[in-house]
Amino acid sequence: MEFLEHLNWRYATKAMNGTTVDDTKIETILEAINLAPTSSGLQPFEVLIVKTDELKEKIFPISNNQSVIKDCSHLLVFTAWDDYTTERINEAFESMYAVRGFSERWDEYRKFLLNTYIGRDAELNYQHAARQAYIAFGFAIAAAATEKVDATPIEGFDPDALDALLGLREKGLRSIILLPLGYRDAENDWLIDMPKARKAKSILIKEID
Amino acid sequence: MEFLEHLNWRYATKAMNGTTVDDTKIETILEAINLAPTSSGLQPFEVLIVKTDELKEKIFPISNNQSVIKDCSHLLVFTAWDDYTTERINEAFESMYAVRGFSERWDEYRKFLLNTYIGRDAELNYQHAARQAYIAFGFAIAAAATEKVDATPIEGFDPDALDALLGLREKGLRSIILLPLGYRDAENDWLIDMPKARKAKSILIKEID
Repeated sequence: MEFLEHLNWRYATKAMNGTTVDDTKIETILEAINLAPTSSGLQPFEVLIVKTDELKEKIFPISNNQSVIKDCSHLLVFTAWDDYTTERINEAFESMYAVRGFSERWDEYRKFLLNTYIGRDAELNYQHAARQAYIAFGFAIAAAATEKVDATPIEGFDPDALDALLGLREKGLRSIILLPLGYRDAENDWLIDMPKARKAKSILIKEID
Repeated sequence: MEFLEHLNWRYATKAMNGTTVDDTKIETILEAINLAPTSSGLQPFEVLIVKTDELKEKIFPISNNQSVIKDCSHLLVFTAWDDYTTERINEAFESMYAVRGFSERWDEYRKFLLNTYIGRDAELNYQHAARQAYIAFGFAIAAAATEKVDATPIEGFDPDALDALLGLREKGLRSIILLPLGYRDAENDWLIDMPKARKAKSILIKEID
């Protein structure tokens, strides 16, 4: 199936049937997240996987009681770094050197990033980190579609409450967006038969000169 | 080819050879952008396509003189709404009603969004809009890879200068990220033979309970 057919197949699933998604499909989705490009390759985010009913039950009321939180197979919680730190940037570069070897060129760039990010307003750095996570979020949704796994992008939750529940702030993380993965419950999903609504491409995308 | 193979094939191309990308491939990438999910379906962004040498030459110096700006086939400029407005939200819903028909349920939701977004700090609304554009940006990169079109995510440019050059602020838009599309110049790209550097998946992605 062509990529666009997968993207047309997917939709923001509003009801899931509780069926477990195979590990091989989950691994494909997670690998796509890891392969997403990020600014300077820092990958400034973490993705947390929730599988237990107990934890899903706790997240449900702080996510506007959306049934997919409970009826999904795996709930991915995308979190972004709350700030850039020297340690985080150095670790990312050491991880890169382990694959590509050390070079003066990279190390100059590392110093440039430290000069740029460290001491800059934490909120600005967090917003930048969060944007990178959204690229990976896009990759995750696309990968799920190619695996015929349903997914529901969810920003409608209380991030402060979720941060507290999962102890994220102590780890320097902030929850930004959720992605329940599972299978559509065709009989109970009010959105399933709705045609996809998108703007005319000519409104969204314009050639300029 | 499997989706992950496409994602492994792609890299942030540092040199392009000037070859033009076929319109059918470009259309696939643009359609993927249009199919990306966005919060409440508002699609709060515009993508501008630059094809002329004249405009690429003007963008080159405000993009750190990166050669791909000049040697790409199509330069996509992702811009986000500078704010949510009543007009923009109403337009998005009218566009949706045209496909799905009007319903009280949707209209209640429209009013809820107006209550939430209008009058809220413009910077907060802009940051939210920009994140949605990053999902579409991820879709564009993935679609380009499936079409074997090279792409270079570029945040390293002067957004104020680009906004001024393209008259974006007057249109209520802010430039956020660039995506040159084209074909790799294998002989002149220092990055082409570097192995892909990513964190261990166990650092990036963690199961919690």
